[in-house]
Amino acid sequence: MYNSDLIECHNRIKPYIHNTPVLTSSQIDRISGAKLYFKCENFQRMGAFKMRGATNAILQLTDEQKSRGVVTHSSGNFAQALALAAKSVGIKAYIVMPSNAPQVKKDAVKGYQSIIVECEPTLEARQRSAAKIEQERGATFIHPSNNIDVILGQGTACKELIELYPDLDIIITPVGGGGLIAGTAVATANSGKDITVIGAEPFEADDAYRSLISGKIETNITTNTIADGLKTQLGDVNFPIIKRYVSTIIRVTEPEIVSAMHLIWERMKIVVEPSSAVAMAAILKNSNLLRGKKTGVIMSGGNVDLSKLPF
Amino acid sequence: MYNSDLIECHNRIKPYIHNTPVLTSSQIDRISGAKLYFKCENFQRMGAFKMRGATNAILQLTDEQKSRGVVTHSSGNFAQALALAAKSVGIKAYIVMPSNAPQVKKDAVKGYQSIIVECEPTLEARQRSAAKIEQERGATFIHPSNNIDVILGQGTACKELIELYPDLDIIITPVGGGGLIAGTAVATANSGKDITVIGAEPFEADDAYRSLISGKIETNITTNTIADGLKTQLGDVNFPIIKRYVSTIIRVTEPEIVSAMHLIWERMKIVVEPSSAVAMAAILKNSNLLRGKKTGVIMSGGNVDLSKLPF
Repeated sequence: MYNSDLIECHNRIKPYIHNTPVLTSSQIDRISGAKLYFKCENFQRMGAFKMRGATNAILQLTDEQKSRGVVTHSSGNFAQALALAAKSVGIKAYIVMPSNAPQVKKDAVKGYQSIIVECEPTLEARQRSAAKIEQERGATFIHPSNNIDVILGQGTACKELIELYPDLDIIITPVGGGGLIAGTAVATANSGKDITVIGAEPFEADDAYRSLISGKIETNITTNTIADGLKTQLGDVNFPIIKRYVSTIIRVTEPEIVSAMHLIWERMKIVVEPSSAVAMAAILKNSNLLRGKKTGVIMSGGNVDLSKLPF
Repeated sequence: MYNSDLIECHNRIKPYIHNTPVLTSSQIDRISGAKLYFKCENFQRMGAFKMRGATNAILQLTDEQKSRGVVTHSSGNFAQALALAAKSVGIKAYIVMPSNAPQVKKDAVKGYQSIIVECEPTLEARQRSAAKIEQERGATFIHPSNNIDVILGQGTACKELIELYPDLDIIITPVGGGGLIAGTAVATANSGKDITVIGAEPFEADDAYRSLISGKIETNITTNTIADGLKTQLGDVNFPIIKRYVSTIIRVTEPEIVSAMHLIWERMKIVVEPSSAVAMAAILKNSNLLRGKKTGVIMSGGNVDLSKLPF
């Protein structure tokens, strides 16, 4: 499924993204019992894997669509990703952000020369504002995770990881809106290798865990998690892929996330955001399952507010 | 000077150290005006370049000396470096540490199976304790920075950087006890290239700045700096090398250090200690001097207490 699309996507976005490094840590291997390969998307442009999907979605537009620009609603990494991708390609981007979004995030989006449209801080207001821009400006709406071009873009991180380490047994990613893990599943399924895909999710935002069990898209009951990138919901484009290819979802507690984040910063000397630490926490929690396994981990991003660290 | 020694040193220690990656950042280049190449010794084993010098000093011992072990006094990175190097080579290490050293540092040294000898928190008590172990146990004293084998070991970081980027104009390192910058000067002088070596120092511990001006070793008047690795003094082995080869020392304030550290963490997504940020601060302070210059930076280490960050 999507094999040639994934290859074409990767070739298309290569000039606009970093082939991020893969780090290893003998200390963390010793602690976890696994042999871990960390694909460091925290070193990606604008600091997260979202740059890949945003770039692919924009490059798939017709010239006419490009001339009218793109629009999305996000207060997180996808806002910055679409803004920077649009700037790189030379098109206009409208980013709908809730009025209470942190100034630092608004500044980052403005820094990429996008047009910020503020709205009330509700999902309904965000969707309405975005729809209005679609209608009035003719801009193309790009969903942060429930869009096949975005999903394929996110899958290129895993594709690069497998190209470098073809004999992985397992790949673990955090699960938020589902774009990263669906893309990872596509890349893994097309690798010709027998690699198990596992998701990691906070207990406090476990829609994917419950959706896999029930077989239909469940909504988050709470989103009271430090992993701010994982508060979003699965969608009807990515869920069928997740259902087909993802083996299991491991849930972790908030203290487990903070402790895993501390371990990565302290031992690996890299800055990752709480969402990435969710994957590490799932590994530490399941050292029996992973013992001796060659395990790839997608370190999703490194955008944190350094003045608000949990340690 | 020392050309064949440096080459032999590098070959000797290669199996025990990481050839650390060199990172670049287009964002920080834009801010600084220079083209920067960051040699990331924060990713070195035990988290700092000190591993290089400690390993070289130990590997230079005779079998008889090795059988009696090594001793040093340090509460910082060299304690951990000598402990890990001794463990790697399979010899005993005695580490004299002040009784008020942080528990986390004592634990790290113990984790490498070294013998910690506690003493009163004065330089005099540290030297006396180390001398006692030398005498009673026959252990060889290894000075953290004023020892030519240590200096040559530290120089291999710069040697690797120049091998990868032979057309650098400038190399900047922080200056503490003088081992790193002296080693860097030796590596640069032997590179056959015309590369300027610049040191960076806190105003609060500016012995090297004043020593270069007066032409003799000056002592620190204050050591009230967040850059805890740079509180130490130049020595009679490294100062002649520094005097001969180092072009200038740039001094920076405490707020400049913290701000540079924040910039590195936020934009490069890596954890570096304040001492490394001193070099970055010197670059930001002298953007006119460095504009358009290909500048190597030795990121000395990444050992910080995450619960005591200055931001």
